[in-house]
This record gives sequence, C-alpha cells and structure tokens, in this order.
Amino acid sequence: MDVTRTLAKFIVSHKAADVPQAVRHEGARSLLNWVACAVGASRHQTVKRTLAALYDLSGPRDATILGRRERVDIFQAALMNGTTSHTFDFDDTHMKTVIHPSGPVLSAILALAERQSLRTPVSGRDFLHAFILGVETECRIGLSVFPHHYDAGWHITATAGVFGAAAAAGRLLKLNEQQMVWALGTAATQACGIRETFGSMAKPLHPGIAARNGLLSALLAKKNVTSAEQGIEGRRGFAAILSTKFDPDAITAGLGRTWEISANSYKPYACGVVIHPAIDGCIQLRNEHKLKLDDIERIDLKVHPLVLELTGRRTPKSGLEGKFSVFHSCAAAILLGEGGEAAYSDAIVRNPRVIALRDRVQAKVQAGVAEDQMHITMTLKDGRVLKKYIEHVIGSVARPMSDADLEAKFRALVKGILPPVQTEKLIEVCWNFGKLKNAAQIASAAVPVRGKPKVKTPARKK
Amino acid sequence: MDVTRTLAKFIVSHKAADVPQAVRHEGARSLLNWVACAVGASRHQTVKRTLAALYDLSGPRDATILGRRERVDIFQAALMNGTTSHTFDFDDTHMKTVIHPSGPVLSAILALAERQSLRTPVSGRDFLHAFILGVETECRIGLSVFPHHYDAGWHITATAGVFGAAAAAGRLLKLNEQQMVWALGTAATQACGIRETFGSMAKPLHPGIAARNGLLSALLAKKNVTSAEQGIEGRRGFAAILSTKFDPDAITAGLGRTWEISANSYKPYACGVVIHPAIDGCIQLRNEHKLKLDDIERIDLKVHPLVLELTGRRTPKSGLEGKFSVFHSCAAAILLGEGGEAAYSDAIVRNPRVIALRDRVQAKVQAGVAEDQMHITMTLKDGRVLKKYIEHVIGSVARPMSDADLEAKFRALVKGILPPVQTEKLIEVCWNFGKLKNAAQIASAAVPVRGKPKVKTPARKK
Repeated sequence: MDVTRTLAKFIVSHKAADVPQAVRHEGARSLLNWVACAVGASRHQTVKRTLAALYDLSGPRDATILGRRERVDIFQAALMNGTTSHTFDFDDTHMKTVIHPSGPVLSAILALAERQSLRTPVSGRDFLHAFILGVETECRIGLSVFPHHYDAGWHITATAGVFGAAAAAGRLLKLNEQQMVWALGTAATQACGIRETFGSMAKPLHPGIAARNGLLSALLAKKNVTSAEQGIEGRRGFAAILSTKFDPDAITAGLGRTWEISANSYKPYACGVVIHPAIDGCIQLRNEHKLKLDDIERIDLKVHPLVLELTGRRTPKSGLEGKFSVFHSCAAAILLGEGGEAAYSDAIVRNPRVIALRDRVQAKVQAGVAEDQMHITMTLKDGRVLKKYIEHVIGSVARPMSDADLEAKFRALVKGILPPVQTEKLIEVCWNFGKLKNAAQIASAAVPVRGKPKVKTPARKK
Repeated sequence: MDVTRTLAKFIVSHKAADVPQAVRHEGARSLLNWVACAVGASRHQTVKRTLAALYDLSGPRDATILGRRERVDIFQAALMNGTTSHTFDFDDTHMKTVIHPSGPVLSAILALAERQSLRTPVSGRDFLHAFILGVETECRIGLSVFPHHYDAGWHITATAGVFGAAAAAGRLLKLNEQQMVWALGTAATQACGIRETFGSMAKPLHPGIAARNGLLSALLAKKNVTSAEQGIEGRRGFAAILSTKFDPDAITAGLGRTWEISANSYKPYACGVVIHPAIDGCIQLRNEHKLKLDDIERIDLKVHPLVLELTGRRTPKSGLEGKFSVFHSCAAAILLGEGGEAAYSDAIVRNPRVIALRDRVQAKVQAGVAEDQMHITMTLKDGRVLKKYIEHVIGSVARPMSDADLEAKFRALVKGILPPVQTEKLIEVCWNFGKLKNAAQIASAAVPVRGKPKVKTPARKK
C-alpha cells in the first residue's frame, strides 16, 4: 500500500493532453470564481491587517495580491490570495468533502508562475493542468479521511489543501517522483488548521497558510530536502494521526480516469447554503412578477430543520449577522434581486423597508423537505398568492450555475474595485486561460488600473 | 475554564524582576547550549539545501543564521536556526514532555530582536525573560496533553513549540492580553509536525517551522488579526483535536511560582540517551587510567533492555548508523574521550582500530538496571580488570551537566566553524547575556569572523 508514492508518480507523470475538455472547462470555471472572490475581498479588514503585519517583510516583489496594487513575495502572495478568496465564504465547494479546493492550490501556483515568468513563463495550459492535479490531490486525500477528519474539528480545506498546493507547485517545478514524495511528506508535516478559529479572521487565513506551506514543501523538495516516504499512509503519517478513518483506495483508485474538479460547485449567494433555496425562490418570483418590497404582504417558507437551526436569526444587527438570517435574506433578495455581498452590507441589514418585510417572513419546518429544497408562498398586498417550489437550488450539482451565472457573480464581486472595461477583459482572460502563453498574465489583469498602493513601505534605517 | 486567556494574561503581565536568579541562569545555560547546537550544524546538508531553496526569496536581510555569514529575513532566520539547532539531535530536552524547548522559542525571538535592534534594541534581560515565558508556555501546554499527544504521533517539540514561539515573540512585541489570546489562537491553528518524518531532513525542520509559525502568529496579532478566543481549550481547539487527554491545570496551576525551564536538561553526547551511560563510563575509565584503544582486550556492559533494542547495531557503516550502536559508541569514546558529533563521523565509524575494539564490546541485559544506569567491566590486555557503575548518567536531572561541561560541549561543537578566540568570547556573551543592552549582539557574535557567504544571490532579470 504505497499510497504517497502512487500519488506522486501520477502527479509528475500525467500528461496535459489526457485531461478531458469538460474537466479543463471546469478548471476555468473554478479559476474564474476564485479570481472573483479574491478580488472581491481584497479591501477587507482581514487582508488589510495581514498586509500591515507583513508588507515590510516581503522578499522580492514578484507576485500580485489580486485586486490590489501592492506587490509582495511569493509566500506572501500565496498567503494573501488564499485568504482573500475565502474571506466572503463565497468560494467553490467540493461538496463530497466540503473542501474549498481552489484557494490553497491557485494561490500557491499563481505566485510561483509569476516568479517563473521572470525566466521561463508557465503556459496557461500547463498551469491549468497543475491546478487540476492539485485539486485531484487534495480532494482525494480529503475523501480518504472524510467525514471523520472534519468532524474531529480539522478545517479540511487547510489540512488537505496543503497537499494540493504542494502537488501543483511541485508539478510546475518539474519535481521528479522521489522529490514529489518528499514534497507530499513535508506537506503532511505542515498540515494544520482547526475549526475553533471559525468566526474569526484566522479562518480565512487557512487556505492562505495551506498555500504558503504547500509552496514551501515543493520548493524544499526541489533542492532535495528529504522527508517522510509515506507521509500520507505511514504508521505516524497524516491519515493515522489526523483521522480515525482512512480509505487509501479513495486516493489511488481510478487516478486519471475520474476527476474531482468535475464535482466542484460554486455558491450563487454569499451566505450559508441552507438559505440558498429561499433566496433562489424569492429572486425568481421577484423577476417573474416584477415585484418590489412594498408589493409584498408576507412570505411563508416550508423548510428543512437546518434552516432555522443555522439561520433563524430574527433581528440581525450587522451585515455579518444578516448572513445567519433567512428572514433578512428573503427581504434583501426582493430589494436587490441578488444574494451577493451587497445583500449583507450593514446598511442593507439596517434598511427600514428591508426590516419591515423581514419581519413578515415566516418559516416552518416541514418533513420531507431536503436541504437544497424549499416551498415558498408569497402573499401580495393586492391579494394574489404566488407559489414557488425549489426542487434543486441553483449552485447545486444537480443545477449548477451556468457560465453566465458565474460571470454575473464575478461582475457583482469585483464592482467598485475593477472598472467595467477591465472586468470584462479579465473575464475573457479566464475563459481563454488555457491559451495564454504566460499564465502570470491573469495576475496583472486583476490589478486595478487606477489608484495607488495603499500600504507604503516606511523608510528604514540601514 | 478560560485556559488560553489565563495563560495570555500571565505572559503579558509577568515582571522580569520576579524571575528567580536560578531560573534566569538556567535560561542562560539553555541559550548557550542552543547556540552551540545551531552553530555546530550550520554546515549540514539540511541547512545547505534549505538555504538553497529559500535564500533568493528572502525579504529584508535583518537576521542571522548562527554560524554562517549569509543574512536572511526574520522568517527564514527563525526557520534556519530552529532547524540547525535540532539537526544533531543534540539540543536541550524537557524530560517531562520530551520537548526540545529552546529551538522554537529562541529561533523566533532572536530573529525578531535582530530586526527590532534597527529601531529599539531589546535588552538581554527582556529577551531572557521572554524566552523563559515562551518555554513556560510550550512546556505547560505540552504537559497538559502528554503523553497521549506524543504517543499519537505528534512531534511535540513542533506542536507545542509554536505556542512558545508565539508567546515569546508576542511578549517582545508588547501584545496586550487580547492580542496574546489571538496569537495563541493563531499558533493553535498552525500547530503541526508528525513523527512519520523522523529519520529525514524534515524532522529537524520542525522546530524551525514552529518558530516561523509562532513568529507569524505574534506579528498578525500585533495588527489585530483576530483568532479563536479559546485556541487551546475550546471544543474544536488544540487539545480537543490533537490529543485524547487534556489536563488544563497543567497550564494554569502555579503560573509564576514554578518554572519549567528549571527541568530542562542537556545532552552530553550526540546520540540517543540510552547509550549515554556507556559513553560516560568509558570516558571516565579512559581518563582515570589514561587508556588507549590498544590497551583494551574487551568491554562488558550490563544494560537496560532498551539499550539493545534501540542501539544494538553491531556493524554500523556510516556516522548516522553509528549513533544506533552502543558498541561503536564505546570504542569511539575510548579513542576520542568524547561522544560529540566527532564520534559519529563516517571516518571514525570506518576506522579499523575503532572497529577492532567495537567487535570486542559485549552487552547483556540485566534486571534492575535503569535506563540511565549501567555496569561496565573493562578487561585490559595487561590483565587488569576495571569496573565502573554509572548510577546516574551525566546530563540527567539528578546529575546535570555543569556549566564547565556545557562550555566543553560548546567548544567541541563550534570547532572548525568559529575560531578559538571568537568561541571564548561567544561563551562569555552567553553567560553575561542578561546584561546586554542589545540582545541581538549574540547573533553577530556567532557569525564566523573569516570566510565569505557560501550561497550567492544570482543576478536576476527585472
């Protein structure tokens, strides 16, 4: 049972031409979604404070923080982009493992590709291939220990993500099989991230930390810094220590025949998934009937129990609290026609008209309603009663967001950070990413064309 | 049970004047031993390869790799010095937890002190105080989960060490209580290091990784990057996830009244502790009777069972294998009069005269002989029979290495790297460390005065 070596051999020897077109397209969709999330949160307090702590300590400023004009070294870029892309909890989800796959992997290899572009640029095709292999690595390792590992309290996006980052970075560095074994071993010994941090700024840091640690693992392996031979499956390895269950076949069976990135999904709304059917239904009714806030007398929901358990907050006071209120989410969806970050600003949560409708939203648990389903009954002031049954919510595997949906999400997220012309160009770059001669171009395309660096390097004594 | 906050409050509010003199002296002894180990291994392949991977990526070159002339940024210095100090497995040991306490803590704060010395130097007294608080933090956290945590496969030096590094660095950064809570939370979510890596270069990296991660935790907290409030004791916190046992009192009881650094010990010989009584006894007989290799007909040992189980290798082929041979260790001790790294070079292990005596060393298990005890009978060619009973081996808590012993170990380790005059000066700096106006001076005192940087920055395209 030589799991680590089998996986390493696959990562270093798989051919880009053998990735099916549909898988490659899912890679581009993941990339698009990741760029949108990273740019969208690039002004958040978490990244401002993190950058304030680290900016002066940067090495060669080869790499980009998406959505910002400051340049930093590749470790900092990996950390920052991993962090921003997870800050809104709006990133992609591999539902089988609840891993957010793109953050750890793309943050590591985009930084690396930017540095490599100084000498030998990485093509978009090779970059996408490395990304897909990285996602395959982290999701398979995640599957091998899920759900026990996550239930124990590990943030699986971080703990599995470090392997994905190491694998993808190692692939771009052209590690040989033995070096890739070491890279995975050094990733195993840096796997970390606990759920106790949820609700604090340390949580979005996790994909960034995984990206940075995975990148380090690959760089060390490239110089033959040895590590465990069986970092994943060994007696004192990742699986034995960080999980009570381990299914090695989940890692090694069917490598190269199935692709976990095909099971990736994207959130249409910037809140927990149990509210999504409510928002989906409200937006559909709003658009079909051209409804305004004041047209509506009341909204009645029949829901899965988790909806009230997780998001039953009646009187949210802040944007963040609004994400835990299905009532607010319905009202905001009627007002704005969307469920993105805009629906969860403090101003919208405190808007008196939104509050007025929010207080007339009722939710009752009904047996037989699944997590991604909901019955919505809307009573209008003119007496009409509208009904909508959401059987599969938008963004689920059964009803994925279309490419156009993803573009709309992209535009909403980057609004106010990138100008419209640049936004459209960046979307174009994402869709045509596989044809780029230099993958690092996506980074420069995501730097706002106007404005100045917000953090200045202070003068220092020598 | 607010463990993290109680600990944080202690770390930020304890007064340097309240550290007893004996505790402070133990701090200086730990410092001396750490510097010796770090300088001694500064030419090792592990650090050469690690440096080759990272040197060009360094940020502001504010910090020192002890024993080398290259300068690197504070994260790299924390990583490198943590690594070198553990490379020979010759560093200090807190026997109650098997934590090697100095590596994670001193590597983090020496780098930080070097950077701070550019603006506001840290005094030796404050540095020593932060170090002692860091050791207190990591050893108490270690005690709260020992032995279950270590037995599960975690390398406790790394997983507990990150807290020590965060605490000490946070103290030097003058974090307030809330920030220290966050620093410990961010340390908790970066706790990592698995024993599967033992026997590879990734193992000595562990204290370095802990130092780097702890330093990052403190720097982020200083800028109010929030984290878990109960990183240690929370439901999804360090103890719950990384251990099956947790004794919170081990962390909070008697803070400021007892000092774990007082239980620190130092290895006299560069190999596993079970061989130490054999080397101790052989050196004593050698010196008492002025013995040479060829004077000895045979050596008979009565030993604890672990001696043969762990170090029963009859025909070691390399220096590293020699460390697992009690037979080689006796022969080398007779030849050299010491059990340092010199006794475990490939050349000594392959020396025909050493091999000749090695093959005439016999070891038998005897009931009632403890791990730190041994009966040694030496039969000389002239017919004399010499006996030595080691009741407590040198380096044990019952028979600690004297200050002079530590100095001798220091000289042996740095030989060939630092010239003799500089060596004596550096020892002097360690003993008088508490009086230094600028703690960073110890770093410059440990840079070889001759020679050039071994790794050059290659010219890079812009």
